[in-house]
Amino acid sequence: MRKSLLATGGAVAAAVLILALLATSCGTGNQGGMSTDLRALMSARNLSEADVAAALKTYTPTGGRDEFYLFASGGHSGNLLVIGVPSMRILKYVGVFTPEPWQGYGFDEETRRIIRDGSPPGLPLTWGDMHHPALSETNGDYDGEYIFVNDKANARIAVVSLRDFATKQIVMSDLIQGDHGGTFVTPNTEYVIETAQFPAPLGGGYAPLSDYDDEYRGAQIFWKFDRTRGRIVPEESWAIELPPYMQDLADAGKLASDGWIFCNSFNTERAYGGIQQGNPALESGASQNDMDYLHIFDLRRAEAVVKQGRTTLIAGMRVLTLPVLVEEGLLHFVPEPKSPHGVDIAPDGNAICVSGKLDTHVTVYDFAKIRQLIEQKRYDGVDPYGVPILPFRDAIRGQVEIGLGPLHTQFDDRGSAYTSVFIESNVARWSLADLTLQEKIPVHYNIGHLCAAEGDALHPRGKYLVAMNKWAIDRFSDVGPLLPQNFQLIDISGDKMQVLYDLPIPLGEPHYAQMISADKIKAIEMYTPVGTDPVTGELHPDAVVREADARVDRRADGVHVYMTLVRSHLNPDIVEVRRGDRVVFHVTNLEQARDATHGFAVDKYNVNLSVEPGKAADAAFVADRAGVFPFYCTEFCSALHLEMAGYLLVKP
Amino acid sequence: MRKSLLATGGAVAAAVLILALLATSCGTGNQGGMSTDLRALMSARNLSEADVAAALKTYTPTGGRDEFYLFASGGHSGNLLVIGVPSMRILKYVGVFTPEPWQGYGFDEETRRIIRDGSPPGLPLTWGDMHHPALSETNGDYDGEYIFVNDKANARIAVVSLRDFATKQIVMSDLIQGDHGGTFVTPNTEYVIETAQFPAPLGGGYAPLSDYDDEYRGAQIFWKFDRTRGRIVPEESWAIELPPYMQDLADAGKLASDGWIFCNSFNTERAYGGIQQGNPALESGASQNDMDYLHIFDLRRAEAVVKQGRTTLIAGMRVLTLPVLVEEGLLHFVPEPKSPHGVDIAPDGNAICVSGKLDTHVTVYDFAKIRQLIEQKRYDGVDPYGVPILPFRDAIRGQVEIGLGPLHTQFDDRGSAYTSVFIESNVARWSLADLTLQEKIPVHYNIGHLCAAEGDALHPRGKYLVAMNKWAIDRFSDVGPLLPQNFQLIDISGDKMQVLYDLPIPLGEPHYAQMISADKIKAIEMYTPVGTDPVTGELHPDAVVREADARVDRRADGVHVYMTLVRSHLNPDIVEVRRGDRVVFHVTNLEQARDATHGFAVDKYNVNLSVEPGKAADAAFVADRAGVFPFYCTEFCSALHLEMAGYLLVKP
Repeated sequence: MRKSLLATGGAVAAAVLILALLATSCGTGNQGGMSTDLRALMSARNLSEADVAAALKTYTPTGGRDEFYLFASGGHSGNLLVIGVPSMRILKYVGVFTPEPWQGYGFDEETRRIIRDGSPPGLPLTWGDMHHPALSETNGDYDGEYIFVNDKANARIAVVSLRDFATKQIVMSDLIQGDHGGTFVTPNTEYVIETAQFPAPLGGGYAPLSDYDDEYRGAQIFWKFDRTRGRIVPEESWAIELPPYMQDLADAGKLASDGWIFCNSFNTERAYGGIQQGNPALESGASQNDMDYLHIFDLRRAEAVVKQGRTTLIAGMRVLTLPVLVEEGLLHFVPEPKSPHGVDIAPDGNAICVSGKLDTHVTVYDFAKIRQLIEQKRYDGVDPYGVPILPFRDAIRGQVEIGLGPLHTQFDDRGSAYTSVFIESNVARWSLADLTLQEKIPVHYNIGHLCAAEGDALHPRGKYLVAMNKWAIDRFSDVGPLLPQNFQLIDISGDKMQVLYDLPIPLGEPHYAQMISADKIKAIEMYTPVGTDPVTGELHPDAVVREADARVDRRADGVHVYMTLVRSHLNPDIVEVRRGDRVVFHVTNLEQARDATHGFAVDKYNVNLSVEPGKAADAAFVADRAGVFPFYCTEFCSALHLEMAGYLLVKP
Repeated sequence: MRKSLLATGGAVAAAVLILALLATSCGTGNQGGMSTDLRALMSARNLSEADVAAALKTYTPTGGRDEFYLFASGGHSGNLLVIGVPSMRILKYVGVFTPEPWQGYGFDEETRRIIRDGSPPGLPLTWGDMHHPALSETNGDYDGEYIFVNDKANARIAVVSLRDFATKQIVMSDLIQGDHGGTFVTPNTEYVIETAQFPAPLGGGYAPLSDYDDEYRGAQIFWKFDRTRGRIVPEESWAIELPPYMQDLADAGKLASDGWIFCNSFNTERAYGGIQQGNPALESGASQNDMDYLHIFDLRRAEAVVKQGRTTLIAGMRVLTLPVLVEEGLLHFVPEPKSPHGVDIAPDGNAICVSGKLDTHVTVYDFAKIRQLIEQKRYDGVDPYGVPILPFRDAIRGQVEIGLGPLHTQFDDRGSAYTSVFIESNVARWSLADLTLQEKIPVHYNIGHLCAAEGDALHPRGKYLVAMNKWAIDRFSDVGPLLPQNFQLIDISGDKMQVLYDLPIPLGEPHYAQMISADKIKAIEMYTPVGTDPVTGELHPDAVVREADARVDRRADGVHVYMTLVRSHLNPDIVEVRRGDRVVFHVTNLEQARDATHGFAVDKYNVNLSVEPGKAADAAFVADRAGVFPFYCTEFCSALHLEMAGYLLVKP
C-alpha cells in the first residue's frame, strides 16, 4: 500500500534527493561507509526515501514545540483531544462530557456541578457524543481563547477555556432531543450554533410517529456567548423551528455572506423507519429524493425580529416558528444534491461548497447569486412548510466531479479546496478558481472529515491537512476487535500531497477537528493567586491559602476539613469523624511551581481530585461505613510522594 | 538541553555518519544540491544529526508494525495504556477501573457487573489508581495472554485479556484498605500478588491510631489465578499478615530463587503523621531509620502451611498470621537502605537489587547467601513482631554508587542493569558482573519507574528502554496547569544510550509499564460466533444471531428489545413503551468484518454501548420520562451512518 501511495502521490522532492545522496560514493576515506550506514538504518527499518522525508518533517526532538494544535472531538468517549502538529503527539485529553478522574473532572464538587447543570434533572449524564469542535473566532479567524463542542446524544454544548484547557460550562436545552450539526460560531463568536438532527416534538413532549409531519420538527439554536464572562447565556439565546427533515452541518457566512447561516439537510423524504412495521429502513427511506435543501438563514434580520418579541417560548427557549420565518422572509431553501454532509464557506465568503455524500460532486453555490435570487424573490415553489425554494441552476457557480462519497471541504492559503471522499478513501484537491480537480491522494481508510490548518477560517494557513479516517483495519499493531481510528497527516505545501504520518486514536472516535497556529494559544501555567477555583476563575470561598489555616471544623452540616497540599504532606493528615457524618474536604494546593500538581484520594469512598498548583477544590461525601480509610496524594510529586498521606477514621 | 544531552550521551554512530554525509560534495551533477536539500529540511525544523538518527529509528510508515507493545498503567485515570515501540504511538486506552463510553465499558450490563462486583456494596466505584501492570508469565517469561493491574486507592486487582484487550474481572478484598505493591506474578502466573501500603485494622474495622502498633497491620495477598478460565479465584486465594510498616514493591524469585517472594518496606518507624496533633508529618516520621526491611517470604513452604489449614479467616480471606509465619519460619527480614522503592530480581535469579530512594546506592543482595543465612538461622535479632532479621553485610554482594534517588531497576540481554534516578533525573546503566556504573543519561524530568524490553523477565530483550518521567515541565507545547508526563524512549542497543523520542502522556499518570515483544500478542479481530458475550466468552443468552429474530418482547419484568445492528440500520428501529417501563435492549452486531463496530446510544437516557463485530451486549434502564428519544449508532460505520437510527417513544 505504501508503494502504491508513493506512485499515486508522485515524487517527493526531498525523498528523491536522499536516494540520490545514498547512491553517492566518492571515496574520500570513510564517507562511503557513512552513506552505507544511513542506508543500513533505512534497510533495518524498511524505510523508503519518502519515509525518510516524512520522518524529518514530523519528528520533534525533546523540548521541541509543535507549529499547530489540532483540537479533535472524542466522539462517544465524550472528551476532547489536543494534538500537536506536525509531531502528531496527543498532548491532552480534556474531560468535557465524561467524568475523568486524572483531571478530577466530574469528581470535585465544582465540576460535578457543571455536569449536573448540563443534565436532565436527577440523571447526571456520564458520557456524551462529541462531534464538531469550534474554536472561538475574532473577525472570522481563530483567536485561541475558547473551544465549543457539542454532544449529539443529549443536545448539549460545552465551553472549554484554552487558558487552562478545562471545561467551564455545559448547557442543554429541552427544545431538542439530540444534535449533530454543532458547533459552529459566527465570525466574532456572538453565537454558538447547535442544530438538531432527529426531528421530535419541540420541547420534549410525546407524539406518535403517525403525527410526524405535523408534530415533529427540527430546530437550530443560537446560543449567545458572552466572551468577557466566558459563558453561554441561555436567557439571551434563541432558536428557529425547522421542518422535520434531518438538518446536518452548518457554517456561518463571512465577508459578503457575513450575517447569514447555511445549513444542510437530508431526509427531506421525512422517513422515520419502522422495519417491523413494514416501512423501509431509514437508510433507504431517507435516500429517495435526488435533491435535499440547503437552508439559508438571515441571522442579522432574524435578530431584529427576535428583539421585536415575535418568538414563542418552548421549553424555556425563545423560538422563531416556521410561520414567522416564512412571513419575515428569513429562511430560504435551495436544492442540494442528495444527502449532503458538509457545507463549507470558502475564504472569499462567496463560494458555498456542499458535498452530497450520495452524489459524486462538490456543488459550489455563489452567494451573490443567492442573494440576488432572494431579493428578486425568484422561487421554484415552496416546501410543504411554506419555505420558498430558490432555483438550483441559478444559484450555483458550478460543480466539481470529485468521486464517490464526498463529505466535507476545507481550504488552504493558495486557492485550493480539499474534500474528503469517504467511499473512495481519498482526499481530493481542487481549484476554487476554476472548479477543477487537481489531485487525489489515497488515505487509510474511510475518511470522514478532514482538517486543514485554520482551513475553515477567513485566512487558512495551508501547509498541513489531517485526514480523519474512521477505519484503521490493518494500519497498526493489533489491539483486539475495537480498533483505533487513523489520523493521517498530509503535507499540502508542495505541488503534490504527501502522507507524512499515521496517528492511531487510542480512545474515542473523532468526527471533526480544527487546527490552530500554536502562537495563538496563551495557556496559563498555574492558578494564581493560590486558592483559585478554576471553574469560576475567582478565589474559592473555602480556599486555604496558608498552611497555618489548615484545620478541621465540625459544623451542623458536617465535618469540614480545610486542607493544604504541598510537597510532601497533607495538612490535616488525620481526620476523625463519626459514621454517617457528611465530610467535606476543602483542598488547596499551595504550590506555585509549574507541574507541581497534587492529587487527593480517599480510599474506598470514590474520591479523587486533581489539584494543580494554586487550585482549590472540594470533595464531599457521607462517611457511611466505619473503619480506617487512608487518603493520599495521587500524583507522584516528589521523592517522598508515597509518604504524602493520612488517615480518615470513621468511628462506628 | 538537547545539546547537553548529546554531549553527555556521547557520539551516536548514525548521526555522525549523516553529518559527514552532509559534508560530502563530490560534484557529479545534481548530487551537491541533493545534500543541500536534506540539510534544508534539517535546518527548517532545527534537527541535529542525532535527531535524524532518532527520527529514522522511530518513524513508522503507514501500515508499519511496532516491534514491542508497552503496557503502561494510567495512574488515577484508572485505565491502561497500550503503546507501540519504537513508534511511541498510543494504540489504545483500555477501560479497567474507570467507565469509558467509547468502549461501552461500565455502560453495558455485562461490564457494569464487573465494576459492581469489584466495588463496596452499594457504591460502584468510578475510578481507580492503577500502578503496576504485570503481564502473565510462563516459565518466567511474558506469554502475552493476560495483564493484571492494581488499584492502589481501593485495593483491587483487575484481569485484562490480551485476546480482545478487554477487562474481564475486578476483585477487591476487604482485608486491606489500599495497595501499592501490586501487581506481580509468579513465574507461571499461579499467583497475582497484591500488597497493602497503608497499615490498617485487617478486615476493615475501626481502631484508633493510638492502637497503631497493636491493631494496624500490613498484608500481602496471593490471588490464585486460573489460567484456563482466565479468572482469579478468590476462594483459592490467601494472604499473609505483615507488621504495620509500609510494604512497597515486590518481585517473585526465579531460577535459584523460584518460589520466594521479595518485598520492600519503608516506615519501619511506624509513624502515622498527625501534624495537627503535634507529631511529625509522615514524610519526616517515616524517614528516621537508616535501614528498613526487605521481606523474604518462602511461598512454596507457605502453600503447604495454608493447605494444612493453619490460616485465620479475615473478611473472607484465609490469612497466615504473623505468629504462624514466625513459628513456621516462612518470613525473614534483612535490612535495606532507607526507604527503598523497587526490589528487582536479576535474570540470574540470584541478584536482588534494591534501590533506596533516600540512599545513593543500589544494593545487590545475593540470594545464595540469604538462603544460607536462613538455613543457618544466623540472625541479628528479631523485629518487634518476632520476625528474624538476617545480617545485612553477610546478605549482600555489594552496592553500586548510583546517585541521588535511585528508584527502580531493570535489565537487558547483555548483563547490564538500568536504574532510574529520580532526584538527578537520569538513567544509570551499570554492570551486573562487577557492580560498576557504566553510564548515565539525562531524562526530562523526575523519572519514576523505567521499563526495558521484557526487562524484568527471565530473558530480557534489550534494545529499548522507556524512562517514565513524572514531570514534563517545558518539553511540550502548553496545555494549561495540568501537564502530561513524558515517556522517553531510549536506545540501549549501542555502547552509548541515546534518547530517541519524547512521548507526552495525554491522559493519566503512568507509574510502571512492561514491554513485550509484539509477536507474543495474539489478538482476535472480532467476536466469533456472532452473539458472543465478551465478558464470559460464551454465546450471550440474549443474543440475536439472525435479523429475522429481531423483535420486541413485552414481559412482566419489562420491555425486551432484541435488536440487530448491521450497516446501516438497527432492527427494530421503532420501540414504543410506557412511562415507568423497564426497558432492556439486547443488542447484537451481526457483522463479521474487521473494524465494523457499531455503537448504540439512547438520547438523554445515558445509554451507550460499543458493539464490536460479533458482540452481544445489554443496556437496561427505566424509561421514567415521557417523550420521543432518538437512538442511533454512535460509530461512523458507513456512508449512511447518520441514517442508522430509530426512535424510542415513551408514552405518558
